[in-house]
Amino acid sequence: MPHINLPNLPGIVGLLVQFPQTAGPLNGLADALLRGPSPLTPAERETIAAYVSSRNKCTFCAETHGAVARHLGQPEEHSPKMQALLALADKVRVDGRSVTPADIDQARAEGADDKTIHDTVLIAAAFSMFNRYVDGLATLTPENPAAYAQHAKNLAQGGYLTTPQP
Amino acid sequence: MPHINLPNLPGIVGLLVQFPQTAGPLNGLADALLRGPSPLTPAERETIAAYVSSRNKCTFCAETHGAVARHLGQPEEHSPKMQALLALADKVRVDGRSVTPADIDQARAEGADDKTIHDTVLIAAAFSMFNRYVDGLATLTPENPAAYAQHAKNLAQGGYLTTPQP
Repeated sequence: MPHINLPNLPGIVGLLVQFPQTAGPLNGLADALLRGPSPLTPAERETIAAYVSSRNKCTFCAETHGAVARHLGQPEEHSPKMQALLALADKVRVDGRSVTPADIDQARAEGADDKTIHDTVLIAAAFSMFNRYVDGLATLTPENPAAYAQHAKNLAQGGYLTTPQP
Repeated sequence: MPHINLPNLPGIVGLLVQFPQTAGPLNGLADALLRGPSPLTPAERETIAAYVSSRNKCTFCAETHGAVARHLGQPEEHSPKMQALLALADKVRVDGRSVTPADIDQARAEGADDKTIHDTVLIAAAFSMFNRYVDGLATLTPENPAAYAQHAKNLAQGGYLTTPQP
């Protein structure tokens, strides 16, 4: 049961409906980060979001963004560049101060430029927020993976600004 | 030295200048959370932001928001309600899933309502992001506390949308 009174909607959806003043910038951040101009494809960025959420054991976020990444055609097997970026994201997830020049060099050796590194770090940081927001208030986590399918399809097709709130 | 090429500006300021597409929603989130309608005063909310940043050892964020809270008149000694909210924020900071109904009950016993609890959790979550963004890219951290004074005064007086970028 959620720690506060919320509409009967899963994960962050109930929070966005109940608290529209912060929903605007939160959706705006998600859209800019995951859909805006970037050297990384939306599928790659959703994969970083899903990976961070999975490592943080945020089931709602991990299931949702994993499903969005699959909708967008992300392969199950990660390229060497994606492996380096996921390793960087995991360092950020634990503690931003743990990122070393060697972590950055490894990403650059696989072709990551400044914007790629920036976007990876900010996606990892942003999902460190979204995961805590969703789980810190004990929002509803559907257990059936099918429950994520329609929401993920909407996000894959429409992004984070135009997806109608249920 | 920062991990990517940035203007010679401290902490998040260089990131906001260099990456304007994400700066918009990031500033919008900070303003909605720290200055928008809330049962908590801006000074109380800045105190939560400073506390989370301090516990995450993000010197730039802790010094900045601590100075903003003092500008806004936050007393050095915390009320029992603030103590309960800071304890809740610290649980969220470590792991959203670690928040228990007893943590929430403790905050409610000190007078916190649903919006107070929501805002506390989202501030703690948001600074889990800002701290990682600032430190994960190894942005510049001034060592002289005076370096934070003007920036903090601008934020205290003008909020996060109208403060001119240096």
